Amino acid sequence: MEIIQKESITEIINEIDLVPEIERGFIAYSNGESVVPPIGELVFDHPPGDVHIKYGYIFGDSFYVIKIASGFWENEKYGIPNGQGMMLLFNRRTGQPEALLLDDAILTDIRTAIAGQICVSKFSNKINKIGVLGTGVQARLQVQYLKSITQSREVVVWGRDARKVNDYKRDISDQGFEVTLGNSPKDVASKCNLLITATSSREYLLSKNDILEGTHINAVGSDTVGKRELGPGIIKKADIVIADSIVQCQERGEISCAIKDGDTATKNIFELGDVLSGKVQGRELGTQITVCDLTGVSVQDIKIATAVFNRYMEKKNEI
Amino acid sequence: MEIIQKESITEIINEIDLVPEIERGFIAYSNGESVVPPIGELVFDHPPGDVHIKYGYIFGDSFYVIKIASGFWENEKYGIPNGQGMMLLFNRRTGQPEALLLDDAILTDIRTAIAGQICVSKFSNKINKIGVLGTGVQARLQVQYLKSITQSREVVVWGRDARKVNDYKRDISDQGFEVTLGNSPKDVASKCNLLITATSSREYLLSKNDILEGTHINAVGSDTVGKRELGPGIIKKADIVIADSIVQCQERGEISCAIKDGDTATKNIFELGDVLSGKVQGRELGTQITVCDLTGVSVQDIKIATAVFNRYMEKKNEI
Repeated sequence: MEIIQKESITEIINEIDLVPEIERGFIAYSNGESVVPPIGELVFDHPPGDVHIKYGYIFGDSFYVIKIASGFWENEKYGIPNGQGMMLLFNRRTGQPEALLLDDAILTDIRTAIAGQICVSKFSNKINKIGVLGTGVQARLQVQYLKSITQSREVVVWGRDARKVNDYKRDISDQGFEVTLGNSPKDVASKCNLLITATSSREYLLSKNDILEGTHINAVGSDTVGKRELGPGIIKKADIVIADSIVQCQERGEISCAIKDGDTATKNIFELGDVLSGKVQGRELGTQITVCDLTGVSVQDIKIATAVFNRYMEKKNEI
Repeated sequence: MEIIQKESITEIINEIDLVPEIERGFIAYSNGESVVPPIGELVFDHPPGDVHIKYGYIFGDSFYVIKIASGFWENEKYGIPNGQGMMLLFNRRTGQPEALLLDDAILTDIRTAIAGQICVSKFSNKINKIGVLGTGVQARLQVQYLKSITQSREVVVWGRDARKVNDYKRDISDQGFEVTLGNSPKDVASKCNLLITATSSREYLLSKNDILEGTHINAVGSDTVGKRELGPGIIKKADIVIADSIVQCQERGEISCAIKDGDTATKNIFELGDVLSGKVQGRELGTQITVCDLTGVSVQDIKIATAVFNRYMEKKNEI
């Protein structure tokens, strides 16, 4: 069994093109060519925390993958990252353990950012400015992963915490973007035709009338029950609504909120994998409003872990 | 994170007394002092196999534990063990990974054998002969783990496969037992007041009238839906029936079969942890028939993994 440290993983990520891998994962998922059981969960008190176990396999692949990811909110008091994570690969034909990827959850961050990039490619108009709600890891990575697919280098950011907003401005400016601060989520929406919502908000930040014609929204922040960034009516107003997983978005994410509002039924919602395979159209008109609800699907983990491991072994055999 | 190899684990197991650990696990479980979610499962075809993910924690413990165990039945064609397994320990306060125990499923074998020993201690009359159905790992380990709690060194074994029965006789004789062969399960039951059923049978092997007064049965083989060793009426006839987990034995194991037969309701069944904590009596009369249905509970995994890791760190710090 290979034990792969974070340093190797970080190095490998820059050497391989993960976008087609993640795309193939979404397509397999929407084609029913994967087995993705319900997420396993452990909840803790004193200190509070939760653990999620995501696992599954794609038909024809060589490995099954288990991801263990936790969030313990008081860790930062002690200088320990709140999020902890690892992925395990097993031989799909024998069950033998093949690799432990000690990625500290960075592969989850990256596969999420790549899903965002894929959605922007398929649905966004030519980007004038990139609007971002939030200042955390995804608020950063989603922008960084747009560099290769857009000329736009203008970011308008909004966040609740002034210090974090300034840190964000400094860091993203260092990456070659021109960052200005939005006064409010509405202000950001008024200036940008691409919106990335990447907060952990439990109350919605954008209202229906804030969203202009021709806007694309990547809704990334709301990944569990109770989180919400888009206000009532936004999903209904959108011309095209896409879920990474319809089943999962019925339970969590913006679509689940819209269903509770009585604003949509999942029959009006399409799955990202079906867009990527060509079964469903992407944006057709410049005036359309489009929304992608990204809650994170195991096939992304399976594909990124497999790609990293394959490259790792390739490099090992080169030596 | 510590990566602990099978060799170290095997060494450590012989240095520590695991019985009280496993007992504390059962007591915590029956007291509601543990969190043990439903088992996660992946099923494969071509080649066939299944993976089980068992996980949880005990209140007050330092770690949460995840066990990954698989069975791929065609492995033996290629000289690879069918069963594969590992356990992972994580810090319960921060989620940080602490240890990977590459035990190849031996810790599961041992914690199962220890549960058997605990049941014999509590329920068996003075053993005349040890009756064993089956010739596999548990048919061996259950006997081996009785050595410390009984003077009896007489084993009567029955198995379907003559070659495997002879291997069993040779190996168990080497461990200081006098092994004779039973002609049938009934024959074994007629000669022994302790019966260990440890086959993977899908049809029952023992009938109600085979079971004599004063017999204790450790039913170990039936751990998943579809497996069964005890015939209709045995659970009903028994004076005391014990489950390692009532909830789990409603779904799988001998008790689930008896419930389907209409032979019992779980209100007549007690839990091992409640016997160990003194809430429920063990055997009261020499004539009673007692049955323990052992399907395997995560608390056993949690306790054995924690004990092995603690001892490992103790030894490491001694150096």
